[in-house]
This record gives sequence, C-alpha cells and structure tokens, in this order.
Amino acid sequence: MYNIIHSEDLTLDRFHVIKHQVEKEGQVVNYSYITIRHGICVIPLLPTGEILIQKEYRHPIRSWQYEFPCGAIDDGEEPEHTAIREVKEETGCEVKTIRSLGVVYPSFGATDETIHLFVAEIIVPEDVDINDDSDTHGRELLEEIKMEAVTEAQLDQLVASGEFSHGAGLAAIARWKLCRD
Amino acid sequence: MYNIIHSEDLTLDRFHVIKHQVEKEGQVVNYSYITIRHGICVIPLLPTGEILIQKEYRHPIRSWQYEFPCGAIDDGEEPEHTAIREVKEETGCEVKTIRSLGVVYPSFGATDETIHLFVAEIIVPEDVDINDDSDTHGRELLEEIKMEAVTEAQLDQLVASGEFSHGAGLAAIARWKLCRD
Repeated sequence: MYNIIHSEDLTLDRFHVIKHQVEKEGQVVNYSYITIRHGICVIPLLPTGEILIQKEYRHPIRSWQYEFPCGAIDDGEEPEHTAIREVKEETGCEVKTIRSLGVVYPSFGATDETIHLFVAEIIVPEDVDINDDSDTHGRELLEEIKMEAVTEAQLDQLVASGEFSHGAGLAAIARWKLCRD
Repeated sequence: MYNIIHSEDLTLDRFHVIKHQVEKEGQVVNYSYITIRHGICVIPLLPTGEILIQKEYRHPIRSWQYEFPCGAIDDGEEPEHTAIREVKEETGCEVKTIRSLGVVYPSFGATDETIHLFVAEIIVPEDVDINDDSDTHGRELLEEIKMEAVTEAQLDQLVASGEFSHGAGLAAIARWKLCRD
C-alpha cells in the first residue's frame, strides 16, 4: 500500500487521469492511471442452451469483434440492473434468471476499470429475430450490433481460434466454466 | 467502418487520448479513446506441472492482485521477446518453450490496448527461490511482486472464487484450456 502525497485529477474528453505522487518506505514515485466508468458483461443463455453472441464494430481497434452484451453502469445503478437493461437494449431479449460471476479488472496497471460479470438465462420475445443479422440494436448512434446464436462447442472454437478476443467476455467464460462444476 | 473526418491527439501524462469525429452514412459523432502501449501476458508452467502465479499491489484498484507475468512491449520489440524478458525480470526464471495464445482486447470500447497471450514452460535457476514470498522482483521502483506455485486445480479454485481477477490472465486461462484439447 502506498501513501498518496500529492493528487491531481485531470479531465480529457470523456476520460479522467488521476496523477498521484505516492510514497512507500521513503521511496517516492509518480503514478498516473485512468478512471473509467465501471461496467457489466453478461453471458446470455438461450432456452435452447445456445449462447447469444454479438458482433460489433469497435472503432479503437478498427475491427468487428465478437462479444457478449456489455455496458457502463449508470450512477447509483446496481450492476445486476445494468446487466438486465443492457441485455434488453442490445439484444431485445428479457432476462429470466441472472447469476453473478464476480468481477474482472481489465487493465489494473493503467486503469481502475471494474467489470461485473454475469451469466443469464434469457427469453426471446416473439417480435425479436435473433438470427436476422441485418438488424441492428443499441441505443447509441453508430452502435451497430449483429447477433448470432452458437452452441457452447462453437463458442469454445471461437475462443480457441482467437476469433473471440473480448477481454471481459473471455474472463466471463473462464469463470462460468469453472464455477458450474 | 467509420470515416474519420476530424482527429485530435491529446497527451496527458503517460496517456494519449485520440479524439475523432467519425461519419457513417451521413451520421456524425464524436468518438474518443485512449491509446495504451500494447503488452504481453504469460502463463508460466513449472517443471513440476504447477503454475507460477504472482501477487502484486495494484495502485489503481488499491489492492493486491493475483496475476501472471505481464508487461509492456518496447518499441520495435517482438511480443514473444517481451514475454521472455518479463518472465525473467519478474520471476527470475528462464523460458524453455513458449507458445502463442493469440491476443485479447481488454477494453475495446475505451482503449486500443492489445495484449499478446502466451503459455511458457519455464526453468527455475538454482539461485532463485520461488517460494520465498518476502522476495520482491521487478525492475521498476515500487514494483513489488510475490510469487506462489499452485496446481492447476488450485488455480481453477482461485478463478472460480473470484480471487484471481486479472483480465489478461483470465483471458489466457480461457484460451489455454480450450487450445490444448
């Protein structure tokens, strides 16, 4: 544990950088990190036992990426509520049951980001076609999401091949597989 | 894919924020993200079949965290070389064989960070005591690392219980378990 002897909070667009000078046993160093709004990530299980995965264009890495529903927790919102809300917003589906898989720290050397992981059984309303990949969801402008139902064996293959590279998603998969035995 | 119609690069301490105005099909939005130096993360396998895990104090989240050796790729460095270098620097051990497990994007909604994952068989030099947890390694000031050898069943338990919450580490575990079958 370090003693914080000087602290600055700098804002740059939607990001905040915390600049600390920390001390431990007489050693003093500068330590800066980014605060990122905490979030959730949910593995959505269909009534068929399949898993509903998404593909979304991710501008920072300039590519379409497989992922699970995820999103930022609003101020004062319970992470579980965020999870239920994001499943609805991104897939159109309702959450029937939901279970916590703990948290993951995506990049604890550079940010304080904390993602709450869940696995949920979901229900597909009659007016939602999860196989129509021309359909796009998401509440934000340019948030373009395509859906795909895969078996667990197919998901395993996407992970093994490297096609599924979503950090929080891989963490959720590792937890889920080791938590249900 | 978006067309970038305006771009700004802002520097704040060790971080760079890219501020883009992007356009798609007539819609224009602002999109900002952080560029973070890309890195590596290695699962280190001991000759006994055990896994060498570390515990390090992570200031952004104010806690000691289990993790695997990880670190930033130097300019022009091959990721595999970084992996071998970081294992040596953080554990004192030599890499005998190393295998790529692809990449993970820890937070592709907010950063362009890319972590190259590996699994490596390592050799413990005679003068290194991996069970001496009073020993600290790492080349940076205040980089304090404790080591622990665990069986795969013990690691699984740390993952399932939520005690192991290292993003890149969990991604490496998911890949590794699904790649070796």
